[in-house]
Amino acid sequence: MKEKLGDTNALYPLVTAIVGSVVDGKPDFATIAHVGIAHLKGITLGMGKVHLTNEGIKANRAFSVSIPSMDMVEVTDSIGMASGRTVDKSGVFEVFYGELDTAPLIDDCPVTMACRLIEHVELPTHDLFVGEIVETYVDRAVLTNGVVDIAKVKPLLFDMASKKYWSLGEPVAKCWSVGKGYKPPKR
Amino acid sequence: MKEKLGDTNALYPLVTAIVGSVVDGKPDFATIAHVGIAHLKGITLGMGKVHLTNEGIKANRAFSVSIPSMDMVEVTDSIGMASGRTVDKSGVFEVFYGELDTAPLIDDCPVTMACRLIEHVELPTHDLFVGEIVETYVDRAVLTNGVVDIAKVKPLLFDMASKKYWSLGEPVAKCWSVGKGYKPPKR
Repeated sequence: MKEKLGDTNALYPLVTAIVGSVVDGKPDFATIAHVGIAHLKGITLGMGKVHLTNEGIKANRAFSVSIPSMDMVEVTDSIGMASGRTVDKSGVFEVFYGELDTAPLIDDCPVTMACRLIEHVELPTHDLFVGEIVETYVDRAVLTNGVVDIAKVKPLLFDMASKKYWSLGEPVAKCWSVGKGYKPPKR
Repeated sequence: MKEKLGDTNALYPLVTAIVGSVVDGKPDFATIAHVGIAHLKGITLGMGKVHLTNEGIKANRAFSVSIPSMDMVEVTDSIGMASGRTVDKSGVFEVFYGELDTAPLIDDCPVTMACRLIEHVELPTHDLFVGEIVETYVDRAVLTNGVVDIAKVKPLLFDMASKKYWSLGEPVAKCWSVGKGYKPPKR
């Protein structure tokens, strides 16, 4: 039995990210869970035009995307409430730079990625940015056999309906594997 | 201590969705976890051009996005492995239509949304679609006080590094609230 809920967006949870750019020579950050993937190396950001961080992304055609862990929930949430137009977020995190000198990488986060802007779609209220990952830095403590272990990252999963951050649960099944027993009919 | 992992995409997990469109008068479906949000009512899909489903989206400028629950993991995974070019997925799910007659809504899923295509960015290997939600149907069993209860939906969270579906864990903290104690300095 289904109920119609208007145009509710129920595409949740999405992983909470901290997006960084350089504005007036200093790093600025915004907490964004309206993220996504465009292609294997392509990250999308849906960012309200009010964010100061957008200015840096447009000016430098570069940004960073960092994944905070659960123990960073307070600072992550605070960055999402205060605009860089009124507060100075440049000293909130330990920052380093890789190949892109306008993508401020966050040392405090277990995962931090530098992206080059490849597409910018201007929507009425939001900038949709598509970035291509140039390089990714990961804490050794969250690697297992050389790959990122999401259970060790402990990301914050954002859900709009509950207005809460959620934790990751347990593995359910292997992809491209668990469904092998079911086959739709041939054309 | 950070390690450089090339251009690894570590923006995971993302919620696993089943995208539907109408091709040659029949519904076709693809399992896509490379999804995202562009603005409050705008969903992004990063879909490899090999998918037949893309043809329907481009032709009709409409698609559906449904969220399968954990107990649908086998059929969800199978839909992600077989192309609509070789198998007929039109009978895999119970389908209904709302306002958009080319957005096949999946009755089997606890959440199913009809979207109108508003932007299409053609990337070298992928179509990046942006859809605006027109209407959303939700099982009454996953509502709490009239809103979608993500703990009841039990979505499948996709992670590329482990090639696994993961479950949702527990709430961690309230958004726009837990960070109120931390304030960056004023500009």
